Amino acid sequence: MLIVNAYAAPSATEPLIPTTIERRDLGPHDVLIDIAYAGICHSDIHTLRGHGGPITYPQVVGHEIVGFVREIGSEVTKHQVGDRVGVGCESNSCGNCEQCLKGEEVYCLNGNVQTYAGVDYDGTITQGGYSQATVVKENFVLKVPESLHIEKVAPLLCAGVTLYSPLKHWNAGPGTKVAIVGMGGLGHVGVKLAHALGAEVTVLSRTLSKERDGRAFGADHYYATGDPETFARLVGQFDLILNTVSAGLDIAEYVDLLAVDGTLVLLGAPSENISLTALALIAGRRSISGSANGGIPITQEMLDFCAEHDVLPETELIRAEDINDAYERVLSSDVRYRFVIDATTFA
Amino acid sequence: MLIVNAYAAPSATEPLIPTTIERRDLGPHDVLIDIAYAGICHSDIHTLRGHGGPITYPQVVGHEIVGFVREIGSEVTKHQVGDRVGVGCESNSCGNCEQCLKGEEVYCLNGNVQTYAGVDYDGTITQGGYSQATVVKENFVLKVPESLHIEKVAPLLCAGVTLYSPLKHWNAGPGTKVAIVGMGGLGHVGVKLAHALGAEVTVLSRTLSKERDGRAFGADHYYATGDPETFARLVGQFDLILNTVSAGLDIAEYVDLLAVDGTLVLLGAPSENISLTALALIAGRRSISGSANGGIPITQEMLDFCAEHDVLPETELIRAEDINDAYERVLSSDVRYRFVIDATTFA
Repeated sequence: MLIVNAYAAPSATEPLIPTTIERRDLGPHDVLIDIAYAGICHSDIHTLRGHGGPITYPQVVGHEIVGFVREIGSEVTKHQVGDRVGVGCESNSCGNCEQCLKGEEVYCLNGNVQTYAGVDYDGTITQGGYSQATVVKENFVLKVPESLHIEKVAPLLCAGVTLYSPLKHWNAGPGTKVAIVGMGGLGHVGVKLAHALGAEVTVLSRTLSKERDGRAFGADHYYATGDPETFARLVGQFDLILNTVSAGLDIAEYVDLLAVDGTLVLLGAPSENISLTALALIAGRRSISGSANGGIPITQEMLDFCAEHDVLPETELIRAEDINDAYERVLSSDVRYRFVIDATTFA
Repeated sequence: MLIVNAYAAPSATEPLIPTTIERRDLGPHDVLIDIAYAGICHSDIHTLRGHGGPITYPQVVGHEIVGFVREIGSEVTKHQVGDRVGVGCESNSCGNCEQCLKGEEVYCLNGNVQTYAGVDYDGTITQGGYSQATVVKENFVLKVPESLHIEKVAPLLCAGVTLYSPLKHWNAGPGTKVAIVGMGGLGHVGVKLAHALGAEVTVLSRTLSKERDGRAFGADHYYATGDPETFARLVGQFDLILNTVSAGLDIAEYVDLLAVDGTLVLLGAPSENISLTALALIAGRRSISGSANGGIPITQEMLDFCAEHDVLPETELIRAEDINDAYERVLSSDVRYRFVIDATTFA
């Protein structure tokens, strides 16, 4: 058993504090990773505060993990000591169902295991990446290309694949018109990815305050959703709309912006139900879909794509002791665009 | 100007009565059709009673039309005098937009022209098929294969293509599991078509009263949605669910029956909004879509497919003077499964 430093929430209402946690002994298919950087995702806060349902405390979160392989299990073939690797939102799955066999582990029919606050197949509750080291099954460990700046790459493991997967699934590319709703941690990576894929990219953000950034990231158009004219102007325009905003939007307004055969994909789950008329869908064979992050093969493809196309998130590096302040800044949208924790500061 | 006998509704609340209507003089691209049979669609009643919005009276409905070409315009090349032909839900469209050029006239970006109660490009209000004859642009006239029993074929022009189009669009076939919700005029044709396409077909009907029919039409499974166990048993089963029921179903219950990457397609438009959680879609990359009837090429393909696979609706032949009684029977679901009017009785 390995004891490592970490930052944990003792309850849903208290700030995170330094602590130690146990990592399991290396199994034959396990990889021990020295964590170098861990991104802060809005889901971390959501989960710790119990907004996704009750969890057990203390809990360590973090599912955007980058580091180096320190040790490998006796039967590990995919990774070697010293490799630069990453871990994303899922750390295990059944491995045998139709979805796992297709490499869609995120949709595992027997239940995937979330990297934190999940119940692993051995019954333990998973602890995430705000920590010095972790032990993960080799199949859930990604190769992080050397050319990707290690200090910035971590958010690709959640934000990156959460946008890349639907962009690929719904065939974003040359000739397609893609709208990204929200210019936060997810949205800004979505703009970069959609642009790199060759799509015509529009940002739909509450205000125009980040327009300059959006255009620098590759947006061809930028509209404020706070301006009612935006919705009138853009009726029937988009083949694909990726909604990264969880807070209750009027989904019906966005469906009206879809072209015939267009799809609105929900990436965040608001607490309120979505509501719209059937006619809005029937009139143009439009669809509303949802998408979770992505399986292991598409996550690896995304990392390789980002290396090839020089796509990296915009990040602000912080120390472990800054996590609680960073949470407040995430909640007030005061981050451009993702916090990354320097994991050496867990020492 | 041609004067023909027809049955029209004088108002939203009165029964249909015999009348005469005018058909336009044959333009160079027009086809004059002697109507042989006209199907009764639930939409006919819905429209006449003003439930789809206010209309102008008197109005003749009917968009499942089969007959013979009596005369063709000077530049018509697609049809000849004597041809057995059909007309469906749309009778005109702009012909120039992206959708029309793709043969998706039903999604015409400048507005298709419904076969009845539509405003045609010349400003006239279209009058439907409960009549002796009609004049339609050649491009909206379908060829009806000789092998399809002429007395039964009419409902394919609406009910048939409304089911065939989504079955094809979402790739129903060998290896796919398709559920048809509702065993009425639309649903029963959907069962036959999905079966002929090679899919594994399940009927979800309120009760088991039509199970014997459903299985005879090709259903592999048949469940009563009135039985709450049905929804528990079928969670995550279907690649494609086609909902033919307009009356308010709990859409969320049906979304739960979708497999990963499955799609629920709404073919009828209930007056209430549909409502569900985003999480229900995200958890399995599921989709809700809508689909209208179908463009001209897919309608022709459907007719040819039905000829090849011997698919015909189940029909009950009536006389013009029985239309009002038939309407009451449609509204009380007392029809197995579609009424067809013998158009010689308009004489």
